[in-house]
Formats: sequence, C-alpha cells, structure tokens
Amino acid sequence: MKAVILAAGLGKRMQKIVKTPKPLLKLFGIPLIEHTIRRILKLVDEVVVVYHYGEVAEYLKNRNVKLVYNPHPEKGNAYSLYLAGKVVDDDFVLLMSDHYYGDEFFDERLDVSDNIATLFVSERCVNPEEATKVKVDGQKIVDIGKSLKEYDYFDTGFFICKKEIFDYIDSGKKELSEIMSELSKLGKVGYHLVEGLWIDVDTPDDMEVARKYFEDIIRKGDDGYISRHINRRISIKITEMLSRFEWIKPNHLTIISFFVGILSSLLFFTGNVLLGGITAQVCSIVDGCDGELARLKSMKTKFGEVLDCVSDRYADIFIILGMLWAYGLTDFSVLSFFLASTGSILLSYTWHKTGIRVRASTRDMRLFIIMVGGILAYVIGTIVIVYTMLIIGITTHAGVLAMLFKSRM
Amino acid sequence: MKAVILAAGLGKRMQKIVKTPKPLLKLFGIPLIEHTIRRILKLVDEVVVVYHYGEVAEYLKNRNVKLVYNPHPEKGNAYSLYLAGKVVDDDFVLLMSDHYYGDEFFDERLDVSDNIATLFVSERCVNPEEATKVKVDGQKIVDIGKSLKEYDYFDTGFFICKKEIFDYIDSGKKELSEIMSELSKLGKVGYHLVEGLWIDVDTPDDMEVARKYFEDIIRKGDDGYISRHINRRISIKITEMLSRFEWIKPNHLTIISFFVGILSSLLFFTGNVLLGGITAQVCSIVDGCDGELARLKSMKTKFGEVLDCVSDRYADIFIILGMLWAYGLTDFSVLSFFLASTGSILLSYTWHKTGIRVRASTRDMRLFIIMVGGILAYVIGTIVIVYTMLIIGITTHAGVLAMLFKSRM
Repeated sequence: MKAVILAAGLGKRMQKIVKTPKPLLKLFGIPLIEHTIRRILKLVDEVVVVYHYGEVAEYLKNRNVKLVYNPHPEKGNAYSLYLAGKVVDDDFVLLMSDHYYGDEFFDERLDVSDNIATLFVSERCVNPEEATKVKVDGQKIVDIGKSLKEYDYFDTGFFICKKEIFDYIDSGKKELSEIMSELSKLGKVGYHLVEGLWIDVDTPDDMEVARKYFEDIIRKGDDGYISRHINRRISIKITEMLSRFEWIKPNHLTIISFFVGILSSLLFFTGNVLLGGITAQVCSIVDGCDGELARLKSMKTKFGEVLDCVSDRYADIFIILGMLWAYGLTDFSVLSFFLASTGSILLSYTWHKTGIRVRASTRDMRLFIIMVGGILAYVIGTIVIVYTMLIIGITTHAGVLAMLFKSRM
Repeated sequence: MKAVILAAGLGKRMQKIVKTPKPLLKLFGIPLIEHTIRRILKLVDEVVVVYHYGEVAEYLKNRNVKLVYNPHPEKGNAYSLYLAGKVVDDDFVLLMSDHYYGDEFFDERLDVSDNIATLFVSERCVNPEEATKVKVDGQKIVDIGKSLKEYDYFDTGFFICKKEIFDYIDSGKKELSEIMSELSKLGKVGYHLVEGLWIDVDTPDDMEVARKYFEDIIRKGDDGYISRHINRRISIKITEMLSRFEWIKPNHLTIISFFVGILSSLLFFTGNVLLGGITAQVCSIVDGCDGELARLKSMKTKFGEVLDCVSDRYADIFIILGMLWAYGLTDFSVLSFFLASTGSILLSYTWHKTGIRVRASTRDMRLFIIMVGGILAYVIGTIVIVYTMLIIGITTHAGVLAMLFKSRM
C-alpha cells in the first residue's frame, strides 16, 4: 500500500505571518510533514508527496519519497490528488501535510472496505468553525462540507481510498471535500471514528496547540517532583534542539547520560565534590532526553527501555562509589555507601516486582540530593558526603519496605 | 455448589500392603483426600465426604467438611452416593478420594449443562487395563465400563452432576459406573475433555507415579545447577516434612530463609568464615522450601513471590557485607564488595527487565561459591573472602552485560 500526502497548499493565512511553507513548520524541531512521514511509513511501503513550493521538494529530496510537482495549487487540492493518480495504481492512504495526527491514527489496521473512500472522523476539533464536518447514516457518510448545519463528526483529512477514486477526479478546479461530498451522495464513502487528537494547522495559534499537546506526550506521566519542576524544563529544550539531527538516536542519549554519570563519579573520585555534585544533576537532566526523543520520534523500543534502566542503575552506583572515595573508607562511610548503593538498585527492583510506586527518593530526587550534598561538602567538608549517602540509603530502603508493605495489602 | 467426595472404598489391593485407608495415603506429607479438598474448596462452598473407615472421619473431624458414614462399603460406591443424596439438595461436583487430580481439573469453570452428569474425561491413563473407559458420540457419552473394547477416553471419576441424578439411584448394590452406563444409554451423560494428569491410586506403584509427577510440579523449571543437583534433594525432604504442619505457610519459610542469611552475615561479621560460608549454603537450601510448599499447598501468591525475591536480595547483600567485615576495609576489598553486592541485585533486576536469563552466577551458585570461599578462607586465610567477592562481582556483572547484549538481538 502507498500513502499520498497532499502538500501543495498555498497556506495563505499562515504565510502572512511566517514565510515557511506549512508542511515545513517545525513541531519540536521536526517539520510537520516529517512527523507524518515517519509514522505512516510503519503502515505503507511508499510515500508520494504532491508539492508546490521548492523548499518542500528540497527538504524531501534525500528521503525515500516520490515527489509529484503541482504547478497549479490554485486549482484546489483535488487537482493534487489528480496528479498523484498518475503515479499511484493501487489503494492508498491519503493525508494532509499540514495536519498533525495523533499516534492513534497510525495504530489502526488499514482495512480497505467496499467503500471508495473511508474517512477517519473525530468527535474532537480545535477549530470547529474552520473544520469540514460530516453527516453519517449507519455505516456511510451522507454529506460532507464546511457549512453543514447538522453534523455528527469532523473530517480529519485522513482517508483510505480505493484506486477507483481516480475515476471520479479530473483536472478541473475542485476541493477534495467537493469530490467526497459527491461520492458520499452516491453512498460510496464510509467512515471510521478515531480517538486520537488531530490538529489542522492553519494559524500560529494552532501550531501552539499542537506544541502543547505534543509536550504532554513527550513528558512521562510519572515524573518525580524535581523532574517535573526542574529537569523537564531543560531536557525538553535539549531534546527539541537535538531532534533536528536525524542521526541522533534515543540510545545515543542514554549512553551520553551514562557517561555524564561516570564523569560525575570520576570527579568525586578525584575529590571534586562540587563539580561531581553538579555533574550528577546534569546527568539527571540528560537522563530525560532519551525518553523524550524516543517518544518524539516514535522510536520507543524494548531494548532502549532496558538499556536506559540498567545504565541508570550503573551510573548511580558508580557516582555513589565516587562519593565514598571522596571521603575515604571508614566503618561509617562504608555502611552509608552500602545502604545508598544497594538501596538505589533495590528501589527500582522492588518497584518493578510489585508494580507499586512509592514517591520516596526517586532518581531525580536522589541525584538532586547528591548535587546539594556536593555543594555543601565543598563549603563545609567532605563528611557531608557521608551523610548524603546515608540519607539516600535510608530513604531508598524505607521506600522498598513501604512498597513491600503496600503490596501485602 | 457442593462437592461430594466418595471415600468409603475398602481399597483391598492396597491394604494388603499398607494399613492406611487409601484416602489417607500421603503424597508429600499430605493425605490424598486433603490435596483434593484443598483445591476443590476454590470451586465449591461445601464438601461432603462419604467414609467408612474411622481413621478418615478422625482425620477430617476438625475440617469444615460434612461427614456421611457408609456402613456398607461392600454395596459399591453408588450406595455411597445414595447416602450423600440425603444431605445434598443441589447440583454438585462428584470426585473420588483415592484419585489424584492435576491442577487443570480445578481450573475449569463448573458449568452445569443439561446433562444429568458431565464426566471429565482424559486421553491419558496410568493403568489402561484397570481404568473405566468411555465411548462418546457427539457431545454425549454413549457407553461406559471397564471392559469396553472400543473407547475414546478414560473416565477420571470427576463429575459434575445435577441433583436429579439421585432419582436414578437406590439403596441397592451397584457401582457408580453402572449408574452412569444406564444414564448414558438414556443420552443423559455429557463429557468434558481435560488436559491435566490424574492418577487412580490402586497400588503402591500408582502412588510412586503420583509422587514423581508431583515432585516435578514442586520443583521449579528454571533451577540452577547447584539447586537441581544438591539443594532440591534436601529442600524437598524438608518441605515434605513441614507440609504435615497445617499452620506453616510458605511466607514463614521465606522469612526463616532470610534470617538464616542474616545469621550467615553475622557469622562473617564476627570472623567465623567457616560457619558463615556453610550457613550461606543452608540459606540457599531453605530458600527452595517456600516455593515448594506454596506449590504443594496451592498457596502461591503475588505477595509471596515479591517477598521471596526482595528478601533474597537483602539476605545476599548482608551476607556480602559480613564478608567485607570479615576481611576488613581496604581499597581492594571495598571494590570487590561493591561489585559483588551491586551485581547480586543487578543480575535479578536485569533478568526481570529483559526477561532473558543467563545461567551465570545464579543465586544457588553464588551462595555455593560463598560456602567454598568460607571453607577455603578458614584453611588459607581471609584474603580468600575478598577473591570470593571478586568472583561473584565479576560473574554477576558479566551476566548483566550478557543479558543486555542478548536483549539487543
């Protein structure tokens, strides 16, 4: 199966404000059309993009995408589809380049039914006035248009089409919604209600809505206090910056975060408690980026998650080992070290075994405490490091016992 | 719903050899009938036992079981059911006290269909010559008996009966299979094919088959080398002995195993490397008992599993902490200690995260190494303890890396 992305719109309203063609507007450093291509490629073998502006062709020239030039965007987007018909000879997915589609759109199994077109419809819409509406009856769409008074759902611009649709399209000036309206009156358009959010980006305000929505996806739901209020503010900016570089993969960031932890460990080893502490907090911030980039680029993998978890545990215990060396070996320091290093791992271990989370001494909090401990140790003396380990040790083991206790109930 | 267990058989063949009535023959310290009662109580509210021998009544007198005395066992087991009919006024499950039924029998949802009796049938049988056979046609049993020439399945003696069955039973001398044979000719007996093993215990040989089968259930499939070849041989005997005591729960054994670990730790702390090492191995053996008892008594719980895992990790790190103290604090000993204590937890952690098991330095192996290390340290000197920790540290962390590597593929 193929996908046809219509990207030849003039985007007049947006272009009054920004010069960039709408498909290239960036959402977290990644052009809108790129978000769509990345994800639709999970469902189809080939992507055809109908474009008008040279910048779009320029951006896509090195991608595995078939480009079709539309010299007459003023003819309406049905003409773009007409041009696509010259290179598409099978059923296909049809989408708009200036829409952002939530992940749910791409989770659907593409089942081409008897309808010439099946439209993904939504109950939600950011701009109801501007949206194309649909009226349904049973399994069919019976009317479609911007000015429908009575309607059931919104048109998301995401279709599954049979190749026969090209029989109904000529080179005249027309909008896709007109074609669909005609087909719907012939009883040839079905629909599929989809849960996910979608945003038709017409104005910079729409772009901001998309950005906010996306930020929520990128954050993790179970962030700790420090992570939510400090780390994420910085890590999301780093992620947005790094997402521009195609070759940077989430696992690279996992490894970088690990080595920042090792750097913190080495700084503690050599007695630099101030820099060691600060670097531990940097490690904590960078630790957020791998997950963010994975969610941003839809690149979550089981291995990535395992690597992240295990390397975090290793970074933690090496930082704590460095802290022990920063102070030196005494009965008290070794016991504190013992509690902190084992507690850091056992907290995660018990969390995974019980499925119960206790918000005690989460990693963001532990590394923050290490930073504070490092700064205070620099000012007061290295004994603070031992107490820092002791605090981490006691709170993590208390967390383990709390989880055990809760899991009993 | 109720269950009726027929336990009034004379068991002549068995009694030539052993004096105990068949229902009280012990399978891992627990009488056959007790195994059945324990598990059938998950499905029914009340259990009725028809008995003849006083020992059976004596054994069951404190159980929440309704006892019905059969003074004429020579009349055949249909007479036992006839007597049960005087206290049962609803549909019921009917089973034999001298059969061992696999767990699968009790997993079934008891759906009383239109048949007066629904017989659980099996394709397997330990003693085909002795077994009652059934011939089916469609959803019905059409004939039943020991001497059938052509048959489809074996009769397991496990029925679901409608209360109307009592209309077909009188106080005359008859076997249940005769009643069922008559009913089957009226088209009133259905069947249900069940996968689980069942054993009709007629001879000591049957008992031995049941024992072997049960031992396989009790063992864990993923035992390590030391566990399989040394620990299980001892722990199964301990479990069999302990299973006699109703009040001993699997979690008690988990806690006992933990404290044996703490004892090992204290022995190392106080410099008793020989006893510390041996006690670590005892801890390893006792560690098997909780799971065995849980499987034996069908008492597996999520909390029990979590408690077992977390307490094992704690016992491990305390034993290793004790080993460090046995030698004393040097850079080398603390580093070895660091590797061993963190590796012991991370190996389990990574196993649970990846779902991939590497047979390196499993707990049975680690505690065995600690025993050997303790013995050698006693003979050669405590420096051996440091190398023991180092070996555990290197092998566990190598195991973690191997799991990570495998999970990437």
